[in-house]
Amino acid sequence: MALIVQKYGGTSVGNPERIKNVARRVAASRAQGDQVVVVVSAMSGVTDHLIKLAKEITPLPSEREMDMLLATGEQQTIALTAIALHQLDIAATSLTGAQAGIVTDGVHTKAKIQNITPKKVHALLDAGNVVIVAGFQGETSEGHITTLGRGGSDLTAIALAAALKADLCQIYTDVDGVYTTDPRLVPNARKLTEISYDEMLELAGAGAKVMQSRSVEFAKKFGVVFEVRSSLNDNPGTIVKEETKSMEGVVIRGVALDKNQAKVTLVAVPDRPGVAARIFRALDEAAINVDMIVQNISHGTPTTDLSFTLDKPDLPKARKVIDALKIEVGYGEALVSEQVGKLSIVGVGMRSHSGVAAKMFETLAREGVNIEMISTSEIKISVVVDLAKGEQAMKAVHKAFIG
Amino acid sequence: MALIVQKYGGTSVGNPERIKNVARRVAASRAQGDQVVVVVSAMSGVTDHLIKLAKEITPLPSEREMDMLLATGEQQTIALTAIALHQLDIAATSLTGAQAGIVTDGVHTKAKIQNITPKKVHALLDAGNVVIVAGFQGETSEGHITTLGRGGSDLTAIALAAALKADLCQIYTDVDGVYTTDPRLVPNARKLTEISYDEMLELAGAGAKVMQSRSVEFAKKFGVVFEVRSSLNDNPGTIVKEETKSMEGVVIRGVALDKNQAKVTLVAVPDRPGVAARIFRALDEAAINVDMIVQNISHGTPTTDLSFTLDKPDLPKARKVIDALKIEVGYGEALVSEQVGKLSIVGVGMRSHSGVAAKMFETLAREGVNIEMISTSEIKISVVVDLAKGEQAMKAVHKAFIG
Repeated sequence: MALIVQKYGGTSVGNPERIKNVARRVAASRAQGDQVVVVVSAMSGVTDHLIKLAKEITPLPSEREMDMLLATGEQQTIALTAIALHQLDIAATSLTGAQAGIVTDGVHTKAKIQNITPKKVHALLDAGNVVIVAGFQGETSEGHITTLGRGGSDLTAIALAAALKADLCQIYTDVDGVYTTDPRLVPNARKLTEISYDEMLELAGAGAKVMQSRSVEFAKKFGVVFEVRSSLNDNPGTIVKEETKSMEGVVIRGVALDKNQAKVTLVAVPDRPGVAARIFRALDEAAINVDMIVQNISHGTPTTDLSFTLDKPDLPKARKVIDALKIEVGYGEALVSEQVGKLSIVGVGMRSHSGVAAKMFETLAREGVNIEMISTSEIKISVVVDLAKGEQAMKAVHKAFIG
Repeated sequence: MALIVQKYGGTSVGNPERIKNVARRVAASRAQGDQVVVVVSAMSGVTDHLIKLAKEITPLPSEREMDMLLATGEQQTIALTAIALHQLDIAATSLTGAQAGIVTDGVHTKAKIQNITPKKVHALLDAGNVVIVAGFQGETSEGHITTLGRGGSDLTAIALAAALKADLCQIYTDVDGVYTTDPRLVPNARKLTEISYDEMLELAGAGAKVMQSRSVEFAKKFGVVFEVRSSLNDNPGTIVKEETKSMEGVVIRGVALDKNQAKVTLVAVPDRPGVAARIFRALDEAAINVDMIVQNISHGTPTTDLSFTLDKPDLPKARKVIDALKIEVGYGEALVSEQVGKLSIVGVGMRSHSGVAAKMFETLAREGVNIEMISTSEIKISVVVDLAKGEQAMKAVHKAFIG
C-alpha cells in the first residue's frame, strides 16, 4: 500500500463535471489499494473574480484581507471534490491548509511554508479516508490565513509529500509531462521519462513554464520525487528526481526559447568597482527581475559595455531606473531591444561532454543566426538571438542535439 | 465609549458598492468613538450559487462538506468589508467564525452555538480595530467548520453581543423595524419603538418573518437587547428587550396574517388515550412541523374531531402519513384545506386586559368572517379563517385594536 499525493490545478477542477472527472481518477488510485491525499487549486476563474471584487473597492487592498478572500477559492474546491468522491462511495474528508497543519510565515500573499504537522491528515488516512487539502494556503502560528503566491498549490503538494513521507507525488496538469522542447513549435519534441531537479530548474529559468522554480527547489531540498502528468489521459508522465549516473549519458535534456525577454545594453560604462553593483541594486529596488548579465573585460580602456535581459513587461520601469542613473553612473548611452529571444540548452550530461557549446554555436552559424549575448551555467548554455530567428534556431538546435 | 455589534444581511452586502455603503455606516459609528464588531452574511446569491454547484455533483451532498463549502460565502464578505473599511482609513480585521472563537456542536448545516471565547475579538478591539466576523458559521471543538442554519447570522450577532457584553446589538435589514402588521397590506401599520422578546417570538410564530425565532430565543435567554433597523436610512428601529411594566399598557402589539398554512381535520377520531400521541409522533417522524392543534371535548360520544395546521409545502408528506394511519387509528375521514389563513394578535398587555378575545371575535363577526379554528397562548390569540377573507380580517382587527 503506497501513499500518493496528487495535485490537480484550476483547469482540471474548472467546473462540477471536471471535478467529477478528478474524483474518478482518485477513485481509480484508491481502487489499487493506495492511500491518497489530493491537493486542489481554486476552480479556474474563481480567483480572478474575487480579485475583481476587491479591486472594485480599492486598487490596493490589504494583503492580509486578500489572503482571507482568496483562500475561499481552494476551500470551495476541496468541499466539491469531497462531495464528488462520496458520490462514488469513496470515504473522503476535506481540510483547509490550516486544518492540514500547514504553518507559514506572516508574509501575506507570498508566504513561505515553515513547517507542516499533518496529524489530522494521518488520522484521516488511517481511518480509510481520501484526504483533500486546499492548495496555495496555510496559516501563521498566530492563526492568520495566508496564501503562498504563484505556483502555491504545487508547493502545497510537494511539501505535504515531504511531511507525509509519501511514496509518490503526482502533479496533474494539462500537458503530458516535460518535453525536450515546446511540442507546439517543434513537432520532433519528445516527452522525457525523467529529468533531474537541476535540469528542471534550469528549464524553468529558461522559460519552459511547466512549474514554478520554488516548488522544484523545495522538492530538491527535501528529496521529493514527483511526476508531472496529464489529468486528461492515462499516459505516464515525467519523473523529476535527484540526478542519477545514467542521466549523464544524455548530453542535452531540453531546449527552451524564451520570447518574453528584452535586452538592455549600457554602452561605455566606467570600468571601476561598485558601478555594476549600483546599477543592479537600483533595478532590484524597483522589483525588476534581471535574468542574464553579460559584461566583457575592458582590456585597457576606461569603460566597458554592460548588457542584461529582463522580462519585457518590466522594460518601462527599467528605463526609468536607467535614465535616473545616467548622470550618477556616467555611462554613454542605453540601447534597448525587445526583438530578442533567449535560446537555452539544458542537461547535466554537458558537464562530462566537451564541445557542447561549440556544437551549439556551429549549428546557429550554419542557420545564419547571429549570437548577441552568451551566458552559461554548469548545466545550461543560453544565447540571446534575434527574435525573428528564434524558432528557426530552436528547431535547428533541437535537431542537432536531440533529433 | 460603547461596544456595538452590528449585523448586515446578504442584501446589504450584495455587491462591492453596497459593501462600501456598509463600511460608511460602520465608519460613522466608529467616528462617535464606539467600538464596533460587524457580523456579515454572504453576498446575496453566493450561497445559492454554491449550493447549485454541489447539486450538479449530487442531489444529496454530505453535510460536513456543505458547511466547508458554504462557509466560504461569509468569509468572502468579511474580507471585502475589511478592505472597504481600510479604504476609509479605518483599522479593521476580519475573522472567520472559528477565529472569532465560536464553538458549536457537530450537527452540520444546523449547528448550535455551545460557547464563544472571544479572546481574539477583544484583543483586536483593544488595539483599535473594527472587527468583522463571518456570520452563520463556527467550528466544533475538534476543528470542523460548521454552519448554523437559517437565520444563522442574526444568531452570530446576538451570541457575540452576549459573549462580549456589548452595550447594543443592531440587526440591519431592509425594513425600518418591526411593524404592528405588514405595512404592504395595511397602510395604517405603525413601526413599534419597542417590543418584548415574547411578543417578538409570538409574532415570528404567527408568520411575521422579521427574524428567526431561535435568535430571539437566544437573546431572551441571555438578556441581549437588540435593535432591528434599516441599512438604507438612519431612522431609529425597533428595540427588542425584556418586558417592562409600561409595555402592558398596550393591549395588542401586533397583528399577523400567515397565508402559508394548510388545515387538516380528522373526523371521528376514536376518543381514547394515546391516539393523538400516535398521530403527532408519526407527523414528527416525517419532519412535519405542526402549528395549531385543536380538539374539542367529545361530550359522551366515543369519537371526536381533531384539527391541526401545518406549512402548506408539507401537505403532500402529511397526507401520506395520515393515510397510512387510517386503519391503525380508525378515524372517519380526513378533510384538507389550503384555502385558510391564520390571523393572530399578539401583546403582553392582553394578560391584564379582559375582553380581548371577545373584541377580536366581534370584529370578525361584523366583517362576516367565519372562525374555523381558535387557539390561544398567554399573549396571543390565533384564529383560522377563509384565506379569501384573510386580509379584510387583518385590516379590521388592526383598526379595532391599533388604529
